Amino acid sequence: MSVPASIQPPHRLLMGPGPITADPRVLRAMSAQLVGQYDPWMTDTMNEVMDLYREVFITENQQTMLVDGTSRAGIEAALVSLLAPGDRVLVPIFGRFGHLLAEICRRAGAEVHTIETEWGQVFTEEAIEAALVDVQPTVLAVVHGDTSTTVAQPLEGLGELCERHGALLYVDATATLGGNEFRVDEWRIDAATAGLQKCLGGPSGSAPVTFSDRAAEVILARTSVEEGIRAPGDPVAVEPIRSNYLDMGQIFHYWSERRLNHHTEATTMLYGARECARLLLREGLADAWERHRLHGCAMTAGAKAMGLTPFGSLAYRMNNVVGVQIPDGVNGEAVRGALLDDFGIEIGTSFGPLHGRIWRIGTMGYNARQDAVMVTLAALEAVLRRAGHRMAAGAGVDAAYGVYEDAL
Amino acid sequence: MSVPASIQPPHRLLMGPGPITADPRVLRAMSAQLVGQYDPWMTDTMNEVMDLYREVFITENQQTMLVDGTSRAGIEAALVSLLAPGDRVLVPIFGRFGHLLAEICRRAGAEVHTIETEWGQVFTEEAIEAALVDVQPTVLAVVHGDTSTTVAQPLEGLGELCERHGALLYVDATATLGGNEFRVDEWRIDAATAGLQKCLGGPSGSAPVTFSDRAAEVILARTSVEEGIRAPGDPVAVEPIRSNYLDMGQIFHYWSERRLNHHTEATTMLYGARECARLLLREGLADAWERHRLHGCAMTAGAKAMGLTPFGSLAYRMNNVVGVQIPDGVNGEAVRGALLDDFGIEIGTSFGPLHGRIWRIGTMGYNARQDAVMVTLAALEAVLRRAGHRMAAGAGVDAAYGVYEDAL
Repeated sequence: MSVPASIQPPHRLLMGPGPITADPRVLRAMSAQLVGQYDPWMTDTMNEVMDLYREVFITENQQTMLVDGTSRAGIEAALVSLLAPGDRVLVPIFGRFGHLLAEICRRAGAEVHTIETEWGQVFTEEAIEAALVDVQPTVLAVVHGDTSTTVAQPLEGLGELCERHGALLYVDATATLGGNEFRVDEWRIDAATAGLQKCLGGPSGSAPVTFSDRAAEVILARTSVEEGIRAPGDPVAVEPIRSNYLDMGQIFHYWSERRLNHHTEATTMLYGARECARLLLREGLADAWERHRLHGCAMTAGAKAMGLTPFGSLAYRMNNVVGVQIPDGVNGEAVRGALLDDFGIEIGTSFGPLHGRIWRIGTMGYNARQDAVMVTLAALEAVLRRAGHRMAAGAGVDAAYGVYEDAL
Repeated sequence: MSVPASIQPPHRLLMGPGPITADPRVLRAMSAQLVGQYDPWMTDTMNEVMDLYREVFITENQQTMLVDGTSRAGIEAALVSLLAPGDRVLVPIFGRFGHLLAEICRRAGAEVHTIETEWGQVFTEEAIEAALVDVQPTVLAVVHGDTSTTVAQPLEGLGELCERHGALLYVDATATLGGNEFRVDEWRIDAATAGLQKCLGGPSGSAPVTFSDRAAEVILARTSVEEGIRAPGDPVAVEPIRSNYLDMGQIFHYWSERRLNHHTEATTMLYGARECARLLLREGLADAWERHRLHGCAMTAGAKAMGLTPFGSLAYRMNNVVGVQIPDGVNGEAVRGALLDDFGIEIGTSFGPLHGRIWRIGTMGYNARQDAVMVTLAALEAVLRRAGHRMAAGAGVDAAYGVYEDAL
């Protein structure tokens, strides 16, 4: 082959369910030069990242750090480390990512129990409590916002339920953290994981995670220090965690003062994760949640005004993504194609039962901005009109203007 | 906490065993904006990355791609996907990273057999064949260059041995790829994994991997399509691979024309991996190997001329890192500290039996350059002299000049 030219991506406005356009400040931070992984500056920076993510997760948890992989690596690290083979886990499934949690738990050797509800709905506390009583799981593993359906499971109260029934509460906050209220300590969440590519405005590839002392104790009881670097007296578990790369105990040790060598820290991703948290905290969490709420409302109002029907329970809609039903007679993929090819704008389709039935339009992270909303609505109107969908001219944009004016 | 300032790492010249200073062109490529993961431009770029790494690995293997994690994620993805619980694996251990392979295989549930040799030595083909006959493993898993000892196991012949004895050959090429001869097809290697942070001149966080058709067949027979996106007729394995994130079969499907959703591609790391390969292929593999050999020789000659004794078998030394014994009466950590604090230069110590006994000095990737070698030798002389180590003034630099002049 001939060696290709340097990278030159086409211009895109990413208004799908994530990944979204990265904040340019995050990409700039990632261009900083590397420093050795045990350099005092680097270990100080790792400690600083722990502090930043404690603020983002609203927690005092010592064990708050990054897993070097995408959000899915963070999910698996938490679950494979918390669950021993044979442990019972309860997974309430209300979309594609609940199925993912179940699959990951099954592969970790856990005994997986699920409850399911229609995609677009969420569970009542009573339904979850009944299942807890029935299953008596070690861990309740739940998705916060499932982008496949665009709704978020209310979490307040679940921590208390879990304490009462002797379970640990794990939450996948990949799609919500930074754009929706999320309080680890107040909500008594024992383990939470996320990614950068949604409301945090960074690229995929680093997973912020946090573990309560209770969860950390369970994990550390299962951890062995790695064979090649084990010192006399170091723990050797009878049944070690089934992964080395995703062994949260070893990752705790790597981020601890002992700095036990594990992987080679993905420094560029760490710089990115640091900048994501820094920008979010500079803005203020409450302001960031409100920003996501406002622009999500404007997008939803615009879509409705164009005659598009929102999907799922609007009462539980995530701030940062809205699902809308593809109108009868309109080719959903052709509309997405024209938006991308002719306007450089990406919106999403969905998975499983919703594939080809809904579009998913995101307003998150760097793209939770008025101009991104307005451009998307204007382009969508133009494409829908050419696809034969009828609406009043300017209806979407006008409705969004209305939301913004009301907010003043 | 008060929100910290934007990132500003101190200036460092990273001359340890890796990670090393990233090529600035790689960091620039990584600042390119994101594109959606199913954008035709993105899938074309993924295909291009596959082609680039086929050239880097010198293979025709269809299954050549990136795992989204550090080099260790690539190792575990290969081993957990190739080995079913109870499968026998043979791991020849000649340093710390052999122990790591054994640990990862053990956690995958394999029956692990090891042979060991003194750190600093390698195995003869006869010793490996005897163990193959004895153990009859499914997989022979071997490190190419083990940076903990700075020697590389010769690989030619092992592929043929494995074929004769019915084993697949897995090689961890993290520390050698791009800076030392490495030929996947010619050497009949069935699976090889690497990282960016050594001779490829990038940051840690993406793992190039390649699998022969024979290896891919074993993996695909163990793969299930993920629960949330499974279609009628899709494979469901009786005993699925123990990881979802590191299930190479699912990763094959994600990189295939079917583009089955798995993780969200770590696009910024992919841009970096692409640029690493692009720069390497522009230079030419043979030229890059020779560059690493030349600068490694200059560094070794300089160290010897300063009275430092190389560690391990020089006949099998990796091109890109040399171990030298810390002289009697010299505090190894104080020397490393002065180099870092006063000169901004990092060199490495080692692990296990070699901790505090040797320094490891790298010349790899972007830092396989004359100026990096010269500055390091001059600084090391200055620091060693103040630590009481006696040598002729300019001995190290002069010896390196000698190597460069001979090469003209």
